[in-house]
Amino acid sequence: MVKVIYVLNGPNLNLLGKREPEIYGSRTLDDVRLLCEAEAGKSGLQVVFHQSNAEHELIGWVHEARETAQGLIINPAAYTHTSIALLDALSACSFPVIEVHISNIHKRESFRHHSYVSARADAVIAGCGVDGYQLAMQHMATLISAS
Amino acid sequence: MVKVIYVLNGPNLNLLGKREPEIYGSRTLDDVRLLCEAEAGKSGLQVVFHQSNAEHELIGWVHEARETAQGLIINPAAYTHTSIALLDALSACSFPVIEVHISNIHKRESFRHHSYVSARADAVIAGCGVDGYQLAMQHMATLISAS
Amino acid sequence: MVKVIYVLNGPNLNLLGKREPEIYGSRTLDDVRLLCEAEAGKSGLQVVFHQSNAEHELIGWVHEARETAQGLIINPAAYTHTSIALLDALSACSFPVIEVHISNIHKRESFRHHSYVSARADAVIAGCGVDGYQLAMQHMATLISAS
Amino acid sequence: MVKVIYVLNGPNLNLLGKREPEIYGSRTLDDVRLLCEAEAGKSGLQVVFHQSNAEHELIGWVHEARETAQGLIINPAAYTHTSIALLDALSACSFPVIEVHISNIHKRESFRHHSYVSARADAVIAGCGVDGYQLAMQHMATLISAS
Amino acid sequence: MVKVIYVLNGPNLNLLGKREPEIYGSRTLDDVRLLCEAEAGKSGLQVVFHQSNAEHELIGWVHEARETAQGLIINPAAYTHTSIALLDALSACSFPVIEVHISNIHKRESFRHHSYVSARADAVIAGCGVDGYQLAMQHMATLISAS
Amino acid sequence: MVKVIYVLNGPNLNLLGKREPEIYGSRTLDDVRLLCEAEAGKSGLQVVFHQSNAEHELIGWVHEARETAQGLIINPAAYTHTSIALLDALSACSFPVIEVHISNIHKRESFRHHSYVSARADAVIAGCGVDGYQLAMQHMATLISAS
Amino acid sequence: MVKVIYVLNGPNLNLLGKREPEIYGSRTLDDVRLLCEAEAGKSGLQVVFHQSNAEHELIGWVHEARETAQGLIINPAAYTHTSIALLDALSACSFPVIEVHISNIHKRESFRHHSYVSARADAVIAGCGVDGYQLAMQHMATLISAS
Amino acid sequence: MVKVIYVLNGPNLNLLGKREPEIYGSRTLDDVRLLCEAEAGKSGLQVVFHQSNAEHELIGWVHEARETAQGLIINPAAYTHTSIALLDALSACSFPVIEVHISNIHKRESFRHHSYVSARADAVIAGCGVDGYQLAMQHMATLISAS
Amino acid sequence: MVKVIYVLNGPNLNLLGKREPEIYGSRTLDDVRLLCEAEAGKSGLQVVFHQSNAEHELIGWVHEARETAQGLIINPAAYTHTSIALLDALSACSFPVIEVHISNIHKRESFRHHSYVSARADAVIAGCGVDGYQLAMQHMATLISAS
Amino acid sequence: MVKVIYVLNGPNLNLLGKREPEIYGSRTLDDVRLLCEAEAGKSGLQVVFHQSNAEHELIGWVHEARETAQGLIINPAAYTHTSIALLDALSACSFPVIEVHISNIHKRESFRHHSYVSARADAVIAGCGVDGYQLAMQHMATLISAS
Amino acid sequence: MVKVIYVLNGPNLNLLGKREPEIYGSRTLDDVRLLCEAEAGKSGLQVVFHQSNAEHELIGWVHEARETAQGLIINPAAYTHTSIALLDALSACSFPVIEVHISNIHKRESFRHHSYVSARADAVIAGCGVDGYQLAMQHMATLISAS
Amino acid sequence: MVKVIYVLNGPNLNLLGKREPEIYGSRTLDDVRLLCEAEAGKSGLQVVFHQSNAEHELIGWVHEARETAQGLIINPAAYTHTSIALLDALSACSFPVIEVHISNIHKRESFRHHSYVSARADAVIAGCGVDGYQLAMQHMATLISAS
Repeated sequence: MVKVIYVLNGPNLNLLGKREPEIYGSRTLDDVRLLCEAEAGKSGLQVVFHQSNAEHELIGWVHEARETAQGLIINPAAYTHTSIALLDALSACSFPVIEVHISNIHKRESFRHHSYVSARADAVIAGCGVDGYQLAMQHMATLISAS
Repeated sequence: MVKVIYVLNGPNLNLLGKREPEIYGSRTLDDVRLLCEAEAGKSGLQVVFHQSNAEHELIGWVHEARETAQGLIINPAAYTHTSIALLDALSACSFPVIEVHISNIHKRESFRHHSYVSARADAVIAGCGVDGYQLAMQHMATLISAS
Repeated sequence: MVKVIYVLNGPNLNLLGKREPEIYGSRTLDDVRLLCEAEAGKSGLQVVFHQSNAEHELIGWVHEARETAQGLIINPAAYTHTSIALLDALSACSFPVIEVHISNIHKRESFRHHSYVSARADAVIAGCGVDGYQLAMQHMATLISAS
Repeated sequence: MVKVIYVLNGPNLNLLGKREPEIYGSRTLDDVRLLCEAEAGKSGLQVVFHQSNAEHELIGWVHEARETAQGLIINPAAYTHTSIALLDALSACSFPVIEVHISNIHKRESFRHHSYVSARADAVIAGCGVDGYQLAMQHMATLISAS
Repeated sequence: MVKVIYVLNGPNLNLLGKREPEIYGSRTLDDVRLLCEAEAGKSGLQVVFHQSNAEHELIGWVHEARETAQGLIINPAAYTHTSIALLDALSACSFPVIEVHISNIHKRESFRHHSYVSARADAVIAGCGVDGYQLAMQHMATLISAS
Repeated sequence: MVKVIYVLNGPNLNLLGKREPEIYGSRTLDDVRLLCEAEAGKSGLQVVFHQSNAEHELIGWVHEARETAQGLIINPAAYTHTSIALLDALSACSFPVIEVHISNIHKRESFRHHSYVSARADAVIAGCGVDGYQLAMQHMATLISAS
Repeated sequence: MVKVIYVLNGPNLNLLGKREPEIYGSRTLDDVRLLCEAEAGKSGLQVVFHQSNAEHELIGWVHEARETAQGLIINPAAYTHTSIALLDALSACSFPVIEVHISNIHKRESFRHHSYVSARADAVIAGCGVDGYQLAMQHMATLISAS
Repeated sequence: MVKVIYVLNGPNLNLLGKREPEIYGSRTLDDVRLLCEAEAGKSGLQVVFHQSNAEHELIGWVHEARETAQGLIINPAAYTHTSIALLDALSACSFPVIEVHISNIHKRESFRHHSYVSARADAVIAGCGVDGYQLAMQHMATLISAS
Repeated sequence: MVKVIYVLNGPNLNLLGKREPEIYGSRTLDDVRLLCEAEAGKSGLQVVFHQSNAEHELIGWVHEARETAQGLIINPAAYTHTSIALLDALSACSFPVIEVHISNIHKRESFRHHSYVSARADAVIAGCGVDGYQLAMQHMATLISAS
Repeated sequence: MVKVIYVLNGPNLNLLGKREPEIYGSRTLDDVRLLCEAEAGKSGLQVVFHQSNAEHELIGWVHEARETAQGLIINPAAYTHTSIALLDALSACSFPVIEVHISNIHKRESFRHHSYVSARADAVIAGCGVDGYQLAMQHMATLISAS
Repeated sequence: MVKVIYVLNGPNLNLLGKREPEIYGSRTLDDVRLLCEAEAGKSGLQVVFHQSNAEHELIGWVHEARETAQGLIINPAAYTHTSIALLDALSACSFPVIEVHISNIHKRESFRHHSYVSARADAVIAGCGVDGYQLAMQHMATLISAS
Repeated sequence: MVKVIYVLNGPNLNLLGKREPEIYGSRTLDDVRLLCEAEAGKSGLQVVFHQSNAEHELIGWVHEARETAQGLIINPAAYTHTSIALLDALSACSFPVIEVHISNIHKRESFRHHSYVSARADAVIAGCGVDGYQLAMQHMATLISAS
């Protein structure tokens, strides 16, 4: 059976490559999707890729993944710092969860230093730019194959 | 005229009975609905029962209840701790509001100890499992009949 | 064997029905006792009902209940917020403990928002007026019969 | 080319004129729209006027404005204090942003004293009632004509 | 009818004149009682004077005073800073309450800077030594005669 | 009778147009006075305009306005954040008070985020540059004519 | 030689009897002066009585008293909570200092709970209305005659 | 003359050996008394041994010891963290005071990390189980013989 | 052209050499002036030397220096910790600013550990007694000659 | 010229694979070295690999790398949270710095949530076990080849 | 086989008996060693005794003890409050750990009240002077013989 | 006998003149040594000059100075903010201690605002660049000659 990895992207990431390139770089979310698919392909994993500005849509996809996927990579963007609901949704899952941030959130405003999602995430990768997604997928493959 | 009580359920409660049973028990949200309807029936009250992962949908139902209902029971789940918007919606209502939590939130992580909703709720029932809904409905009936 | 439930009441509750009726209502502690006994009677439970302004007397009754009772309902009043000794006494008990507050303590002064007792209580019922005792007894009966 | 100003309104503002009139006055959101259009008309500006209880819908409109408008006035209501996602959306815009609050939020509960949106807003107008929108539009016109 | 003023003294004040004279002076609690009676006598007031190391005994006397007295002067000593129960008892009284401290508690350890009792007291006199009781009684007489 | 509006300016505002133009712009305090008089003139209001580096002089003018004026606009500058005395003076007045800040103080150092004056001000206008005075005067005229 | 007591009054106390009578009562500062002189006269003490809205004038009078007086009574009003300079001036004096507050500052806003002046004052009298000055003068006489 | 050492035990210690043995071990308070007497006997010291759940009884025994004993060992249990009154009582004594805790309180809940009693105790022994009493008595003997 | 250095001294420094000599030493402010003039003379600098207890007078001198001087040395005394207005005045100057404290403020009460002025000062010299002024002037000469 | 990457390991990492395997896994530091060299080899990078329990030795290697290397990967272990000196050393370097943690430090004790090193690190990888080193080296290669 | 106990001493303890004798007494570290050896000898235990000012040397000895010893007594001195690295080293050991402080650290500056080492130590003995080492060794012997 | 002054320099100061010249200037540590020796020479003082990245080496030199020197100047660099051990070492010395910082640490990150060393230092000189060493030596000479 093909194993499925969800890759979820939080609010404003649809603007990736367009807003504040000095922080987020110039690659777009489509580039990220391709990067994830390429990396996943190496290990025979299939990617379900979503972005939403809506907290409840992200929660819904986590619930969906809970039934159908073997792993989840999430860049919760601003919801990292405010969404206990997302944390609760992720806590209901037993597969590996990897949290990705494009920038190093620990170097930015202090309200970006705390992550609710980290309380559930198995791993956190921050500040590697969009390459962080690739590293996360690679590590996901390692975890999946080891389990 | 039949009196109507809204029973609103916040994010992730659609998973009730499925996730973390050691915290939330094994009864599902459908069981909760039946429990509420049964208890309400004893006092001739009618139940409107909803669940949503979306903050705005919960707000919308509060606005709707404001026009059409005589009381409201809410388990805001994770939005308990983060949603000032829900507090504002409830503050615009003049009927009784009862806040329910399945677990005793005061025994969990410290970020679950503060509730924005409590600043408006008339009563709070926590840690009685899904029976808390029944107790809330029973108390609602007392309040309604007294008013 | 008849099962026994202790109902303990903390400082100043002897004034119930006399002081600040806009917060605590007009029913007296005797009314509360009758209410508890009536509710307990439905399930064949026997009530031991006490009030004291003295922390050590409350602790003593908890110790006594520990040997002789099957459940405990407590309205610790002001000791809710200051008595670690009461928490320790309750932590030495293995039966169900339900914490009751007549008013919604979360809507009052901020020093009333934290409860030491909640760290041990199985359930918390606040803001239901003296009816909260009845709901607590009802839930206690459910717990007892389930155990 | 006609210049366009978005006027966005956050959660519960659909109740304007109906809830808590001692805080928010008796004019409705439709009155606010008319007020904005009248004021904008004086300077040949066109108004796009929206209200939503949904954080993601507000974010979506900010993204839309980013492409099509020359300025934005926002009353984020409860999201003022909790939405980093809205702040991020606004930070991706380069046009003038004015934050409006009907009441003086600094005189209310302490959790209403901090605004995430102020970290991006060029100006803040609070406590002028719904006339605050008119003042904001007037100042927007000054900024637009000066740029 | 003779008007009665309760003068209550908290824990360790039985040692007055014996412990730490550089803080508390050398006059004993009996001297304080005589001082109060002398000052009260000038205005035809009668004094009921008590000391206890027990929080509940102090609460009991407040309840007693509530029924039988026209005013209350209290030096809560260490319970100043820890007893919400005493505050609750005093809040149930409608007569004037004056809080006395022999030393200036604001010059001592920081945990002595906050007083729960001050939230109810009409006046606070600190740092006047045992003469503070006399000043309090004098002011009590003024308040009583004015009411 | 001609209605009088006081416009008071706090410390360092005599340097307006001279210091840190990137924050405060290039118009001088004289320009502000003219702007206020022009706007007030439209509604037949008379302006009394003052600046001082001295807290007590500002307090004195508030006392004076209390006897002779119908409204007050104040830019308390640095005293915004430190002067309880100014707050007390304003609290003794019953006419409308509008607080103006040239820059958006919420975007600057954190010690500039709290305003004692806001606890009394009816409205706050910040970040509109010196035009904020004009908007304040305009709103003052509305309030005056409505009262 | 006649002994001299300074009685200093801080900002806004010139409005005494005029502003917020529910907090400060209806007697004026002139009444306070007469009260002080009458009480001082009983012990042959002479009063130097001042009020100022200016911190530096109060400091100047403290320096003056330091050379010429035997005691000082001060109601620092709003400077109680903000003036380290006043504390420093008082710390340079070796005579008795008594701090007076007309209202019980501990029952008001939390920013009024801390007093810099208390760190130097020998005694603090709060909440006795303007009679607090009389009690302070009486206690001053006791201290002076004892020294 | 025989030297006397008081050994005082706070609330819930009467349950020692019965409650939570994984924290407190299985020896009872009677075992502790025997251990203390045995150790004291080696140095010719006499033990007065008490336990109470009542704060005032502990205070009373401290006062008693103050007149009749040469040293005091105290396990204040929950009152460690809440009783300023006990601290005040101990501060009135000039003999050596040793504080004992059966468990290492620094490894438990954060509200158990602060001890009021430590502000007076000469030495603190925690986490040695009931053997901590023996070590305390042994050190007391050293101190007594050295003084 | 002769270069001018302002040396400003805050509240209570007129008492230098008279109050608390164990903290501030026995030299007077006149001695400080002579010391500054002597040191300045070595580099051909001219000194303008002032002291005031009034915050606004210090601000006025800073404004004056801004137009006429090449450097400024300030011992803000108590205003160090409370005057944002002074910080604002200094921030409007572009010449070198050196902050001097006679005592080491970091060894005193914690409210003396924070300095608003340090946020603008180029250098801070504390705890060197009045010699700190000389060191400051010497460093000022170095800075001036280097610029 | 061959490019050199330093890989530095902080205190207790010499025990890797031996202590607390449930947190750190069972691979040793030698395994980590081999992993790094293998990954670096793919991009023709050379690895200098060190571990020390001494803060100053780590600082020394950072200084050395500053002169001779093109990038640095560091697992500062416990010094993550306490060493400003290490932060200062890294701040003196201009090459890319990647911070690695074997466990997800955000899920452990709260004193492990803050990292001084993150204030300088370009990227942070946590919770990927020792594979985190490999991911870091891979990302380093990307950064190096891009620069 | 002879059982070995490490006794480790942190920074500045080489000065024992020389610095601040009013806090630390007059016995030297050599006296402490002899005391430990004598006490250990009673139970047939062998002592390895070290002191270092270097954090890494202490860590090294903990690692060494981990392989070769059956228990460890440590006075971490200043590293008590700052060294997470030492805590980590001790957490890698499974034998008993006893923390000793010569003075009662809870009576000293507040930054000495928190101990990282206590999070791992089985027992803590503070304020018994150098005799605390003897008590620790005695308790170690009890633990060792019981295991 | 020639008097000796130790000048100690903390971590990373070996990079002086090489790293971040906009903060630390371009003179090297050798320049600092020469500067110190020249200034010391004027007063016949001899300099012992050291730098280390190791906390324990700095502590060792303080112990050495304690036996052989008459004064100590220290720039603790990053250890300023983290080393209680260094504070303890300095507290064991009775000669004058002067703390030097090249930059004004109060204008940098908030974690650089607190100094443990200041709790012992007699004087603090910050922000004078490397000239601060010269000023410190000059003041040391004054102190030495006065003692």
